[in-house]
Amino acid sequence: MADPSTAPPLTRASVQAAHKLIEPYIHKTPVLTNATLNRLASTPRTEAELAGTEWAGRTPAKPVIRFWFKCENFQKVGAFKARGAFHAIERLKQDPSFDRAKGVITHSSGNHAQALSLAAAISSIPCTIIMPTISTPAKIAATRSYGSRIIFSGPTSPEREAAVAAAQAETGARLVPPYDHPDIILGQGTAALELQSQLSLLLPEKTTTLHAVITPCSGGGLLSGTALACEGTGIRVFGAEPSFQGADDGRRGFAAGERVTSVKSLTIADGLRTPVGKIPWGVIYERRLVAGMYSVGEDEIRRAMRLVYERMKLVVEPSAVVGLAVALYNEDFRAMVEREGGQEGWDLGVVFSGGNVSLDKLGELLA
Amino acid sequence: MADPSTAPPLTRASVQAAHKLIEPYIHKTPVLTNATLNRLASTPRTEAELAGTEWAGRTPAKPVIRFWFKCENFQKVGAFKARGAFHAIERLKQDPSFDRAKGVITHSSGNHAQALSLAAAISSIPCTIIMPTISTPAKIAATRSYGSRIIFSGPTSPEREAAVAAAQAETGARLVPPYDHPDIILGQGTAALELQSQLSLLLPEKTTTLHAVITPCSGGGLLSGTALACEGTGIRVFGAEPSFQGADDGRRGFAAGERVTSVKSLTIADGLRTPVGKIPWGVIYERRLVAGMYSVGEDEIRRAMRLVYERMKLVVEPSAVVGLAVALYNEDFRAMVEREGGQEGWDLGVVFSGGNVSLDKLGELLA
Repeated sequence: MADPSTAPPLTRASVQAAHKLIEPYIHKTPVLTNATLNRLASTPRTEAELAGTEWAGRTPAKPVIRFWFKCENFQKVGAFKARGAFHAIERLKQDPSFDRAKGVITHSSGNHAQALSLAAAISSIPCTIIMPTISTPAKIAATRSYGSRIIFSGPTSPEREAAVAAAQAETGARLVPPYDHPDIILGQGTAALELQSQLSLLLPEKTTTLHAVITPCSGGGLLSGTALACEGTGIRVFGAEPSFQGADDGRRGFAAGERVTSVKSLTIADGLRTPVGKIPWGVIYERRLVAGMYSVGEDEIRRAMRLVYERMKLVVEPSAVVGLAVALYNEDFRAMVEREGGQEGWDLGVVFSGGNVSLDKLGELLA
Repeated sequence: MADPSTAPPLTRASVQAAHKLIEPYIHKTPVLTNATLNRLASTPRTEAELAGTEWAGRTPAKPVIRFWFKCENFQKVGAFKARGAFHAIERLKQDPSFDRAKGVITHSSGNHAQALSLAAAISSIPCTIIMPTISTPAKIAATRSYGSRIIFSGPTSPEREAAVAAAQAETGARLVPPYDHPDIILGQGTAALELQSQLSLLLPEKTTTLHAVITPCSGGGLLSGTALACEGTGIRVFGAEPSFQGADDGRRGFAAGERVTSVKSLTIADGLRTPVGKIPWGVIYERRLVAGMYSVGEDEIRRAMRLVYERMKLVVEPSAVVGLAVALYNEDFRAMVEREGGQEGWDLGVVFSGGNVSLDKLGELLA
């Protein structure tokens, strides 16, 4: 992959340039609204609901929230990851030192593997994916269906890195990491850029399109890209994480003033089990482009997911609804919206990051 | 309800008039496409797949199909039924003999009950719903949430009719039947009307917008309304039914030249267990406005449903995908498209009728 030192600067203009590059390849995903979810979010939770939570005894917040859902579950390969992968490939194609015949390589068992496989296939670039042997047959089949070569490795980080190194030594392929690279970050930021232009069509009478955007945060590619896409617009950006088994490393890092570099969580939001990467952290925290990090428990994620299936008729993966769950159930976030938004309230963009959930597990997730 | 004899004539112009009446109340639902499903539908099935079906030994058909999915799962109350209910209510409001204070009544445990409840509530018209005692708590709660009064009856037809008669004697409420009435039929037809105008924007270079539309068929309100909406346009209209336990009464009636008036099927497509009504039958068969009826088995419905969840990321109920299942798996339909559409193929509208599936049953349905 292009050396990070030669990548474009991490600015809103670079996100706009990224969007021009990838526009022919990606879907301009729809922005949906839902009156029932607006009403729920704008209704104070009951004291009974708050009993037994960390907010027990507090007066429930009374925010006014109008949601604008950016549906990246409808994106190619079913997740926003297609944006970063196409951008990385387009940038590589512009790099004279890149030998297309040697191809690209990454390690992933999830959406990034499929996204890179698709983006490479469309440009006829060979692609190798290092996957842990424990990956589900469905994910292996989906990745293979795009024509990538799959190499299996053990599940630990050293085993994975050894497999990457061996494959790179053999092929000379460029590594395209899942989030810790400027080209990936700039690509992921294009979703929030589209959201802004779509909102200016939907809300033509307003001068600012949105008050805030909230996205899930794992390695931080989507969140940092979103923050760049909103820099200078007045739109505040927030990150959402699962709290289960410490998957809220971003929130904890924010509080401690230092990036948390290791996470071991089996949260049901399986796309959000990775700690924030170094380059995303620079955007999110060091440049203060993210206004705050919030977390929710597993039950809140399940409840939000049920609402999206029942009320919006959308298939989303658990990771996708963590921002919605924060807006519905995190009293710290809700009190902040009440305080900042007052009676007029907020137009809140929520990125539904993906829809790749195993149908065999869906019954259990929604039970 | 307005006396059928005073209802507008069953014509395309009446569907257009119905659309004007209900436009302020309903969602203009999106039309979606999907490259993977187009590819699947346009790939011949293998001989191995056909072995063990009624088409064993036949050369697999080679149709070319481009789908245009009209997503009524995104409609208010999660189903097209909102269209007919709003139209019935708007027509009643124009009827000087209708006493609004006496309200409306219907018998239904499903989407029609919720649709009428919503439409009545928006016009502050009292609404009574007769539901079988065996209805699920979720359906009872959903209907009650719109403010309707619920009266429980036994599950048989005579018990239900006695409960309706008793409630009508008490309240003087007008009966709004679920499908066997011109106002309902004309309302349901508005989905296909919208599909036509949406397609003319999406395919501006074509003179005809679509070659054909296929919708599920139960009581026949949606299918007959669709047929009226397409009359004179050159768009052919087809009906789709489950074959399980004789739920393909429309197809059998077509073959025999006589309406089948009784069905007892527990197909998983639980919205399609009712025989075609008298007035819909007049449009569908007697006026020859439907070009053909096709059916599929339970496994084909499940397979189509899995594809819509996995590939389109949409929540649909089993009844909604029966038209898609016909296009993917019914060799008679596919051979007909090959014959009529040739190498250019067909642009085929498919109405996804609704998305109201119990989340508790979803795991089992998709397993």
